[in-house]
Amino acid sequence: MNITYMAELLATVSERASRLVGLGPKPRSTAERGDIAALAADLVSHRGEASGVAIAREIIARYDALGTEEKVRFLSGLVERFGPDEERVARAVEAWRTDPSPAAVSELHIAAEPRRQELLRRLNLAPGGTLALVHMREDVLDLMGDEPNLKVLDIDLVHLFSSWFNRGFLVVRRIDWSTPANILEKLIEYEAVHEIDGWDDLRRRIEPADRRCYAFFHPQLADEPLIFVEIALTTGIPSAIGPLLAADRKPLAPKEATTAVFYSISNCQQGLAGISFGSFLIKQVVDELKRDLPQLTTFVTLSPAPGFAAWLDCERNAETSPLSPSDRQTLDLLDRPGWHLDKAIIDRIEPVMRHAAARYYLEARTAKGRPVDPVARFHLGNGARLEQIDFIGDTSPRGLAQAYGLMVNYLYDLERIEENHEAYADKGATAASSAVRALLKRDTSSRELA
Amino acid sequence: MNITYMAELLATVSERASRLVGLGPKPRSTAERGDIAALAADLVSHRGEASGVAIAREIIARYDALGTEEKVRFLSGLVERFGPDEERVARAVEAWRTDPSPAAVSELHIAAEPRRQELLRRLNLAPGGTLALVHMREDVLDLMGDEPNLKVLDIDLVHLFSSWFNRGFLVVRRIDWSTPANILEKLIEYEAVHEIDGWDDLRRRIEPADRRCYAFFHPQLADEPLIFVEIALTTGIPSAIGPLLAADRKPLAPKEATTAVFYSISNCQQGLAGISFGSFLIKQVVDELKRDLPQLTTFVTLSPAPGFAAWLDCERNAETSPLSPSDRQTLDLLDRPGWHLDKAIIDRIEPVMRHAAARYYLEARTAKGRPVDPVARFHLGNGARLEQIDFIGDTSPRGLAQAYGLMVNYLYDLERIEENHEAYADKGATAASSAVRALLKRDTSSRELA
Amino acid sequence: MNITYMAELLATVSERASRLVGLGPKPRSTAERGDIAALAADLVSHRGEASGVAIAREIIARYDALGTEEKVRFLSGLVERFGPDEERVARAVEAWRTDPSPAAVSELHIAAEPRRQELLRRLNLAPGGTLALVHMREDVLDLMGDEPNLKVLDIDLVHLFSSWFNRGFLVVRRIDWSTPANILEKLIEYEAVHEIDGWDDLRRRIEPADRRCYAFFHPQLADEPLIFVEIALTTGIPSAIGPLLAADRKPLAPKEATTAVFYSISNCQQGLAGISFGSFLIKQVVDELKRDLPQLTTFVTLSPAPGFAAWLDCERNAETSPLSPSDRQTLDLLDRPGWHLDKAIIDRIEPVMRHAAARYYLEARTAKGRPVDPVARFHLGNGARLEQIDFIGDTSPRGLAQAYGLMVNYLYDLERIEENHEAYADKGATAASSAVRALLKRDTSSRELA
Amino acid sequence: MNITYMAELLATVSERASRLVGLGPKPRSTAERGDIAALAADLVSHRGEASGVAIAREIIARYDALGTEEKVRFLSGLVERFGPDEERVARAVEAWRTDPSPAAVSELHIAAEPRRQELLRRLNLAPGGTLALVHMREDVLDLMGDEPNLKVLDIDLVHLFSSWFNRGFLVVRRIDWSTPANILEKLIEYEAVHEIDGWDDLRRRIEPADRRCYAFFHPQLADEPLIFVEIALTTGIPSAIGPLLAADRKPLAPKEATTAVFYSISNCQQGLAGISFGSFLIKQVVDELKRDLPQLTTFVTLSPAPGFAAWLDCERNAETSPLSPSDRQTLDLLDRPGWHLDKAIIDRIEPVMRHAAARYYLEARTAKGRPVDPVARFHLGNGARLEQIDFIGDTSPRGLAQAYGLMVNYLYDLERIEENHEAYADKGATAASSAVRALLKRDTSSRELA
Repeated sequence: MNITYMAELLATVSERASRLVGLGPKPRSTAERGDIAALAADLVSHRGEASGVAIAREIIARYDALGTEEKVRFLSGLVERFGPDEERVARAVEAWRTDPSPAAVSELHIAAEPRRQELLRRLNLAPGGTLALVHMREDVLDLMGDEPNLKVLDIDLVHLFSSWFNRGFLVVRRIDWSTPANILEKLIEYEAVHEIDGWDDLRRRIEPADRRCYAFFHPQLADEPLIFVEIALTTGIPSAIGPLLAADRKPLAPKEATTAVFYSISNCQQGLAGISFGSFLIKQVVDELKRDLPQLTTFVTLSPAPGFAAWLDCERNAETSPLSPSDRQTLDLLDRPGWHLDKAIIDRIEPVMRHAAARYYLEARTAKGRPVDPVARFHLGNGARLEQIDFIGDTSPRGLAQAYGLMVNYLYDLERIEENHEAYADKGATAASSAVRALLKRDTSSRELA
Repeated sequence: MNITYMAELLATVSERASRLVGLGPKPRSTAERGDIAALAADLVSHRGEASGVAIAREIIARYDALGTEEKVRFLSGLVERFGPDEERVARAVEAWRTDPSPAAVSELHIAAEPRRQELLRRLNLAPGGTLALVHMREDVLDLMGDEPNLKVLDIDLVHLFSSWFNRGFLVVRRIDWSTPANILEKLIEYEAVHEIDGWDDLRRRIEPADRRCYAFFHPQLADEPLIFVEIALTTGIPSAIGPLLAADRKPLAPKEATTAVFYSISNCQQGLAGISFGSFLIKQVVDELKRDLPQLTTFVTLSPAPGFAAWLDCERNAETSPLSPSDRQTLDLLDRPGWHLDKAIIDRIEPVMRHAAARYYLEARTAKGRPVDPVARFHLGNGARLEQIDFIGDTSPRGLAQAYGLMVNYLYDLERIEENHEAYADKGATAASSAVRALLKRDTSSRELA
Repeated sequence: MNITYMAELLATVSERASRLVGLGPKPRSTAERGDIAALAADLVSHRGEASGVAIAREIIARYDALGTEEKVRFLSGLVERFGPDEERVARAVEAWRTDPSPAAVSELHIAAEPRRQELLRRLNLAPGGTLALVHMREDVLDLMGDEPNLKVLDIDLVHLFSSWFNRGFLVVRRIDWSTPANILEKLIEYEAVHEIDGWDDLRRRIEPADRRCYAFFHPQLADEPLIFVEIALTTGIPSAIGPLLAADRKPLAPKEATTAVFYSISNCQQGLAGISFGSFLIKQVVDELKRDLPQLTTFVTLSPAPGFAAWLDCERNAETSPLSPSDRQTLDLLDRPGWHLDKAIIDRIEPVMRHAAARYYLEARTAKGRPVDPVARFHLGNGARLEQIDFIGDTSPRGLAQAYGLMVNYLYDLERIEENHEAYADKGATAASSAVRALLKRDTSSRELA
Repeated sequence: MNITYMAELLATVSERASRLVGLGPKPRSTAERGDIAALAADLVSHRGEASGVAIAREIIARYDALGTEEKVRFLSGLVERFGPDEERVARAVEAWRTDPSPAAVSELHIAAEPRRQELLRRLNLAPGGTLALVHMREDVLDLMGDEPNLKVLDIDLVHLFSSWFNRGFLVVRRIDWSTPANILEKLIEYEAVHEIDGWDDLRRRIEPADRRCYAFFHPQLADEPLIFVEIALTTGIPSAIGPLLAADRKPLAPKEATTAVFYSISNCQQGLAGISFGSFLIKQVVDELKRDLPQLTTFVTLSPAPGFAAWLDCERNAETSPLSPSDRQTLDLLDRPGWHLDKAIIDRIEPVMRHAAARYYLEARTAKGRPVDPVARFHLGNGARLEQIDFIGDTSPRGLAQAYGLMVNYLYDLERIEENHEAYADKGATAASSAVRALLKRDTSSRELA
């Protein structure tokens, strides 16, 4: 395979966007075309077959200029006026009720496909169409709260994006200091876990030899990372984020590293919410790292516990709780400003916090029987294992506010991912190390005596 | 936009295919997994969520090695065992019958989606998955005649490919003598209209300054052109293919050309039959040519008339025909071997043939009211106009056999494409030049007297 | 020509550097090889023919680790021990004195070539050799003051670099916000005219639509720009740098620009001092801009006048001067702090300064009859014309210190470059606009009366 | 390092060639410029400094159109009129005679440099200048026989090319079936050892998994390989070329190969004759292969013996010869047509031929004390060892005519290359295996009895 030939293919994709602007058939004046809703109707008509690119471009340009109310009107119109052919649905339903054969089901599926789907596919004909549709979904997500009928449109977009952003079409790329600046600035913008404080901070995260960063890209959105993960190479499982990000730390020679720590993973496109990439990215990056640095033995995260403080406050105030009354009393120390800097408090509070964290991760459950913590749901759902509780891992204001400083490590052991995932998916079971499990038993003897 | 950065993205796509082989989690032995049908079940289960890439790769490798009977069994299994959740369909049908709201229709559509679709999407996770699925559809098309239940699977694949091969994701590339040889040999292989007789012939079609060739590619199938078109730059509308392909012709300086002649357009992937690219390709190439050579004024095809001989033979033998008895008698001259080399015959037969051709294109209709000629359906459906009848345009054995040597030119006038297309799509109207229309009137006076 | 194929060629160049490290024949231990001087002798011997890459790499690695004294010793050794074959020189001299034929001169040239030249060419075999030699010349330039015998080595390096960095091998590249960060940071580092104050300032200079930046690169030094030029698109010839660099200025639509202003040109490699690129870069960029923006009519610089303050101070203090006593008295106002902010002073001083500037550029001459101002020598030598005197064009501390704020514009009119250059090269003539010439005549009437 | 950024650098090189045509300053009409000789004078004058690109382009275009006589006149003019500054040479000679210091020698070298060198360097400013100069040297080499004064110009060109085509600037690229066709056809054209019989034969040499081909390229001549080598992967040292090139042979899995056989190495540019690349290419390819296929243990050639038949014929007819009278009598069998197909002859002749070959390689020497065989001089000069004599290795007409079918293998053992090369360079010693050495002793006892 001639890689450069392929590479030029993609270059062409992007060029097209700029070049085509102003080209192509413009057989009808804008006035003649009517408003954006009429254009949408055109696009799924015979006209759209002949002049799809031009009409799609026009719709996208106009949509971009709409105010919120007009957007609601346009989007609602898509829901109301671009459903399926009602008669065909009715016929398909009758046929299926008579004989629910595979062919009848297939016809039912097809008949019930709203014309919106074809409309959305044709909007993609425009240069920059894919990104425009991702942004349109951002709007839908924003507006859906007030306009519940848009939920149907959201389903259509998710359906489409599931096909288009199939992991088979995504490309993983290493991000480093030789990456174009316009990509790098998006890392600064999108970093969701540990904020990047300008170019010097960014550089510290991607240039040193013991740092890695990878992102998924889609060929159609080449300047837009979809998701990225930041990694530190270390010699053991770290228990706090501060030392990893310290400006004055001394880099490790990559050959000496034994552990890759995924300390931040951030989605970039709100409009792709719910289209899952993270699991694939982590697994592929584990593969890449193993290839480059075969001596690596351990792949872990250093993760926040975003729901811990809220849960713990609940427990502290609840009538009944799995936490003992004395433990709950100890936790009042958390209300003292600067508690995390006070050695005496830390010593008293640590075993209680570790025990509480174990209960939070292993026992606290949502109505659907899943862990309360959203980050836990993500990593456990990927087949990772809860490996370690990091008491006082993140003393940033956010870290203290959302989790009283607590962090955790999830371990990605590729040999056990499938097994863990199945147990989790089938039974909601939380894979956890024996050390974490042991924390469930609160041996209070010694301390109670004190 | 940094084009090279994007370009490298795509290079990565292709590298992935080779690199990933042998990598990734292999948590279960093949034996433990069971047969290919069991693997397919795994792929849509929770196991598939965790180990999708590995299972997909395994299925594709095994499928490749199956014999015809085993393929039928596997593919039929997909139809029978990977339908939708029956109960959910039943509920959705009931809900819809109660209240056919957009939400109910949406749910009906989703409920009726066979799990096959998800299975196919997950097969795409494997390196090379897209191409494997295109090849799988080739099998389905081949087998469908004997196994009509596979029709449902074909519908699923078409649905998927319509999303994946959306024109917004395709890339047009010029093919020339600096194109990699492994791509070029595919042109030799796939050329469907005027056979390419080896490398020297190929070179004559793509290297001279007055020749162009363009193809559509998909990022995931970068070594595989999807469709390509061959173009000659000329100073007028040509009426025969021979001079265009002559080995000893003298090339024209591109700046002197006024006309671009699309003389061959060939699909490459049987497995993408029905996913329409040709219309887009022609229009985009017209754009590219206009940009490079602004002096071009005319964009025409030089096209075969593949159904003409069969239709004409019918008319000649029919009880009644729009062709006059005397004309039909004249046409008996076509039965003489070498008629096309005989000046006297040619002179007598030409007006009759031109008249017959006009009737063939303008009046002969299929049951659905479309032109009988498949090539005409394609170009007229694209919004082109039948511009010229070329009596004795192709004297190759195939040209004589299928059309008594007749060829035609379709004109692509971007200003009128939409209008033509609509008239065609709505009413089956054939856009034709006045010269062609005039041929309908057979003024036989002078000749009858002779 | 298949551009991507070529492109990959170059990619290979860079890969080679990293890949080859550690590869290749290592037939002798370092100890056996002896010291760096012995290695240099090896490199030009038969050993060097067989193992040139390995020896060259070793020399470069060791050279890098030397202290200043050791470097002097090594470099002086190159001068003393790697001259030409003395006997061959003597024979060639005799032959030439007997018969100064072209063949005799040719032999004289070759015989007198020091073996150093071959040594330097072989050092280039090492990965990264070219850059190492550029850095070695930096050392030579630094050390030459104290070690005049190194001058000979400098001549050798210049001779070699003149061949290697022949403009035919250089590549002009646009620099913009999608350029890799590791290139961009070099702009911040090397900008020599108007300092770039961090990433935000850099971005203001390369991202807006009315800004351009171009650099020359050499294939072997791909991460290292050789020289770059910064350009502002404007609607007229600007007379001050401040507004061009203002953080809050409003960008101009490129299509509305009539003028391209080269406001900064900076060399990046001290080791390439004296190898002239600037003239070529400006002319090529003019070509590029004309192609992209055909409506541009004017190509000017906005340039500092680095020698003006020193010259003016001299004139003010000289016994006799072309400046009149009253003008020289007026110039005492320049000694008042903040003079450039005082409207009254400005009004009085402006005509005097403009007149003085005209004398500075048009009449003040070095011993060799060239303009005193080094920037003037560069642009006039390129064939540009002194177009406009900008009184108070640069009020930065540096601008005030070196030129009392004066700036000038040089006009690049491609039609007249050759003529201007010849007049300058032959006679030292300064091409200047009539407006500048007119300033030579100091009409003091009105003001003297006041 | 961002490889794609570098890659695009090079792409720009090639684009420049086409884009710049027609651009750039054209301040004087052709008529005004005078003839090509006058243009050459312009190019090294001040005009050339200002308008070098335009003048260089003009000279190259005109040179191309010259007839042979005009070329001789122009090239001779370069020799006669573009020598050095005679007075400066005279001064430098005097200074050197007074004090032959490094500075004086340096000045002698520089003073004696003909202005031709600068002229040639400036010709390189034109787009395509490097290739034009390579072609100019082809002319010089062709014409030099009749015009011995051109020898001096040849020396200038070689001097320049030695700098420009320094191995540090060359790029090795693998050639395979995904290489652009315009490159591949050059392999067919330039293959000098075993002719490539069209595209199918080419494909057999580069596409199978057990075949490799590598070439050196220069960034400025990206469509023009400089030299290429063809390699077969095998399980042992082959003794004949036929089986390697057989159309119906079964490819070997690369992993099973133990041996890489360099069976053809061809220079492509006659104009670069004497600029040595071959040695570097072989060594670098050995490195590449070792990296890709670490199990390879043996790197040998399968080489022709182009001088063997001529030498042997001499010996057979000479008064005295190291070959015994009876052996020489046996060799008369070589005069029988088809001898190489006759088992009986083969058996009788083989030991004599092997013995003669040993004498040819180990003892026959040129006047300068080097091996008579030019291919032997190349490989032994590279430090390879004569490993094996292949009796009847090449029965092609050429193989029989030049060497009575004899071929040999040279072994590249990177550990011993330096040692072998030095022994060869210092003493003309032929490194040979003990098996080859043993052939020198002709044990005729058994056979003489027969």
